[in-house]
Amino acid sequence: MNFSAEIIAVGTELLLGNITNSDAKEISEALSGLGINVYFHTVVGDNPQRLKSAVEIAKSRADIIITTGGLGPTFDDLTKQTVAECFGKALVFHEEEADRIRGYFRGLDRQMTDNNLAQAYLPENCTILVNSCGTAPGCAFESGGKHVIMLPGPPRECGAMLHSGAVPYLRNLSDSEIVSHNIRIFGMGESAVEDKLRPLMTALDNPTLAPYAKTGEVSLRVTAKAKTHEEADRMMKPVIAQVSKTLGDYIYGIDVDSLEEAVLQLLIKKKLTLAAAESCTGGLFSKRITDIPGASQAFIGSVVSYAIEAKTSVLGVSPDLITQFGAVSRETAQAMANGALKLLKADLAVGITGVAGPGSDEKGNAVGTVFVALASAEKTFCRALQLGNDRDRVRITAAHHAFDMLRRYLTGAAIGDMEHFSAFHRLK
Amino acid sequence: MNFSAEIIAVGTELLLGNITNSDAKEISEALSGLGINVYFHTVVGDNPQRLKSAVEIAKSRADIIITTGGLGPTFDDLTKQTVAECFGKALVFHEEEADRIRGYFRGLDRQMTDNNLAQAYLPENCTILVNSCGTAPGCAFESGGKHVIMLPGPPRECGAMLHSGAVPYLRNLSDSEIVSHNIRIFGMGESAVEDKLRPLMTALDNPTLAPYAKTGEVSLRVTAKAKTHEEADRMMKPVIAQVSKTLGDYIYGIDVDSLEEAVLQLLIKKKLTLAAAESCTGGLFSKRITDIPGASQAFIGSVVSYAIEAKTSVLGVSPDLITQFGAVSRETAQAMANGALKLLKADLAVGITGVAGPGSDEKGNAVGTVFVALASAEKTFCRALQLGNDRDRVRITAAHHAFDMLRRYLTGAAIGDMEHFSAFHRLK
Repeated sequence: MNFSAEIIAVGTELLLGNITNSDAKEISEALSGLGINVYFHTVVGDNPQRLKSAVEIAKSRADIIITTGGLGPTFDDLTKQTVAECFGKALVFHEEEADRIRGYFRGLDRQMTDNNLAQAYLPENCTILVNSCGTAPGCAFESGGKHVIMLPGPPRECGAMLHSGAVPYLRNLSDSEIVSHNIRIFGMGESAVEDKLRPLMTALDNPTLAPYAKTGEVSLRVTAKAKTHEEADRMMKPVIAQVSKTLGDYIYGIDVDSLEEAVLQLLIKKKLTLAAAESCTGGLFSKRITDIPGASQAFIGSVVSYAIEAKTSVLGVSPDLITQFGAVSRETAQAMANGALKLLKADLAVGITGVAGPGSDEKGNAVGTVFVALASAEKTFCRALQLGNDRDRVRITAAHHAFDMLRRYLTGAAIGDMEHFSAFHRLK
Repeated sequence: MNFSAEIIAVGTELLLGNITNSDAKEISEALSGLGINVYFHTVVGDNPQRLKSAVEIAKSRADIIITTGGLGPTFDDLTKQTVAECFGKALVFHEEEADRIRGYFRGLDRQMTDNNLAQAYLPENCTILVNSCGTAPGCAFESGGKHVIMLPGPPRECGAMLHSGAVPYLRNLSDSEIVSHNIRIFGMGESAVEDKLRPLMTALDNPTLAPYAKTGEVSLRVTAKAKTHEEADRMMKPVIAQVSKTLGDYIYGIDVDSLEEAVLQLLIKKKLTLAAAESCTGGLFSKRITDIPGASQAFIGSVVSYAIEAKTSVLGVSPDLITQFGAVSRETAQAMANGALKLLKADLAVGITGVAGPGSDEKGNAVGTVFVALASAEKTFCRALQLGNDRDRVRITAAHHAFDMLRRYLTGAAIGDMEHFSAFHRLK
C-alpha cells in the first residue's frame, strides 16, 4: 500500500516567524526514507478552532497525520485535546507516564509544578511514544483507517522520538522494507556529481539514487524497496559499487555521520593523535571533532590563535615569517600546523588561517582566502583556497578541508596541494 | 482593518525534507512586523492539482495569500499558471520583463535558453515585483477582495523581493504599525520567568508579552500595535521597565543577538581583551565569540586543552593539582583560566572543564558536572554546575555560563560563586 502523509506543526511562534519549521524537514526526510509520500505540510497556531479545521482538512487528504508541538504542560498546549476530539477519542490518565515525568524532575533535582502531570493524559488506546529528552510523551493511534502520530515541538525531542518511536510504528504499517544508504562526498559540487551520475540516476527506478547538498558537501542517497532488508541491500550493492567507481576518493564514507566522524574513526584505528592551530575558524574545527563522544581517544587539543601574538608566542610562528608573508599565507598556515604539532606533541596537526570576513584583511587578501595545512613529523601539506564571501560558509568549508586532508592522509589518498578538489574552492 | 494571511510554499524538495521552509519564517517575521496575522503556512509540491486545492483552501480562510517558489523557467514551475487560474486571470507577456531577463544573462555573459522568457508571462493587471538577485519576477494583485503575492523560492531572491516589493505593497494596505522588542534572559528557566510575570502577561492586551525558550536561555518578546512606531515604543516602555525591575540582572540585553554578542560589545567598549582555556566545550566558547564579525577587537585566542598533558604543558596547570583535585574540579578550572590569562596576555580569561559525557570520568564525576572559572589579574571566580546528561546541552550551557560570568563581571553585577543563577544548574 502507498501511504500519503501530512505534517501539521502547531505553534504560534512558527507563524510569528520566531523559528523555522525544522521538525517538518526532519520528519519529511524520515518519511521519504520509508517510501511514504508527504503531500502537504501545514503550520497552525496554538488555537483550537484553527487546529481543528487543519486536522479535518488533513483527514480528508492524507492517510497518516503527524503533528508536532503543543504537547507541553502550559495552557496553550492544546494539540492532544484537539486532535483526540477530531477523532472522537477521550484522554486517559497514564499513571506510568506520570511516574516517568516525576522521575524526570527528580533526576534534575527540580521542583515539579502540578501542571506537568497534564502531560500524562493521552488518547485512549494509543501507543505511547517515550520522550527521551524531555517531559511531554508523544503517542500514535489508528482511527477509521487514518494513522495519527503526535510528536513534541522542540526539535531535539521531536527528532529523538521520530526515530525511536514514530519510524518503527510506521515501518510496521508497510509490508515491504525501504532501506537507504548514504554515500558522503567532499570536494565535488552537487552539479558535478549529478553530471557524472545522470545516466545512472535516470536509468534507475528501484533502487533510486538522489543527490542532496549541504554547506560544502554532497550526499547521495541510494534507496531500495524490497520484501526484506537483505534483499534491499543486495539490490543496492551494484549501484553503490558503480557510484564508488565513478567518484573514487571523493567519497569519504558510506553511512557515516560526518567528515569529522570518518577522521576520528581512522585516527583511533591507526592509534594516531591530532592537534590543531586555528585562526579564522576560531575553534570550529576543534568544536566539531569534540562534538563526537570519544574524541579524547585521539584529539589532544588545539590553540585558537586569533591574534597575531598568539601565533608567535604560543605556536612559535616566527614574527619575521608573518611580516614577510602575512598572517594569511601558505607559510603561516604551515608554521601554525608545525607549531601545534610540537607544542601538543601530536602525530598530526592542522593549521588554518584565512579571511572569514566581512572585510578583507590589512594585507588586502580577499574575504574567503584560506590556507589549510596538515603537518606530520615527516611532511607538511597545504591547500590554498577561495571559499566565497559568506563568513559562516568560509569557516565551515575551511574546517571541512582540514578534515578532508586528514582523511586523505590517513587513507593514503592523494591529499593534493590543489589538484584533487573542485575548481570552486581553488584559489587562482 | 485586521488582515489575516496564509503563506503557501510550493516545492517538492520541501516535502522530501531536502530543505527547510526558511522563506515562510522570513515572510512571517515581516508580516508580524506589519501587524498582519499569519494563521496558516502550507507547503505543497510541484503538482498543479494539489496546489490548486491549497489555493482554494487559502482563499476561504485568508485575506492575503503569499506564495513562494515555482516561478522559474522549467516545466515543473507551475505557480503562476495555477494561481492565476484560481483567480480567473490570464497570463500576459510583459516585454519589459523579457528585456530585463535578457539583460540579466548578458550581464553574466551566459547563453539564455528560450524557456527563460516564459518567466515574462505574468497575471493581467498585476504589480510586477522586480527580482534583484535572479531572473524570475514576482507579482502582486487584488481579486475579489483577496490580495495575492507571488515570490520566488530561493531564499536570497525571496528575501530581497519580500523587503523591496511585498512589504511596501502590504504596508499600503494597513493603517497601523506593529513593533517588537526582545528581552534576553540567562540563568532563569522559562517556567520561572512565566511564574514571576504571569499576572503581567495575563493582564496585557496591547502591548503583549510572551516568553520563548531555547537551549539554556529564555527570551521575552514585547509587541505593541499603534498608529506610529513612536507610539508603539511609548506603549512598551512601562512594560519593559516592569520586566526589567522584576528580572533584574538575569536580563542580559534587549534586542541583542546573543549572550556572546553582549559580552563582545562590553569588552570592546571597555577596551579589554579576552582569552579562554576550554576542555569539555572543546572550542565551542571560542567558536561562538568568533562567529561574530569584529571578535578580533577583543578576543586574543584560546587553548583547547582536551588531554591532561595539554593542560599541564601548555596552560601550566600543575600536575600535582590535577592529581590531588582531578581534571574536573574547581581548582583545575581556576588554574586553566589563570594559565590562559598569562599565556595569552589577556585582561580576562575563562576556564571550562567538565564531563560532557556520554560516560562519567575516571574520577567518577557524573555527566554534566562542569566547573567554569573567570580570571582577571586581581581575582578568580568559579561556578560549580550540574548541566544534565545530554552532551550537546552540557557543552552549550557550559559556554553560556562562561559568557554570563563575563557579562556580570563587565557590568558589575554579582557573578555568584553559585548564588545568582537558577537551582537547575547548581551543583550540590
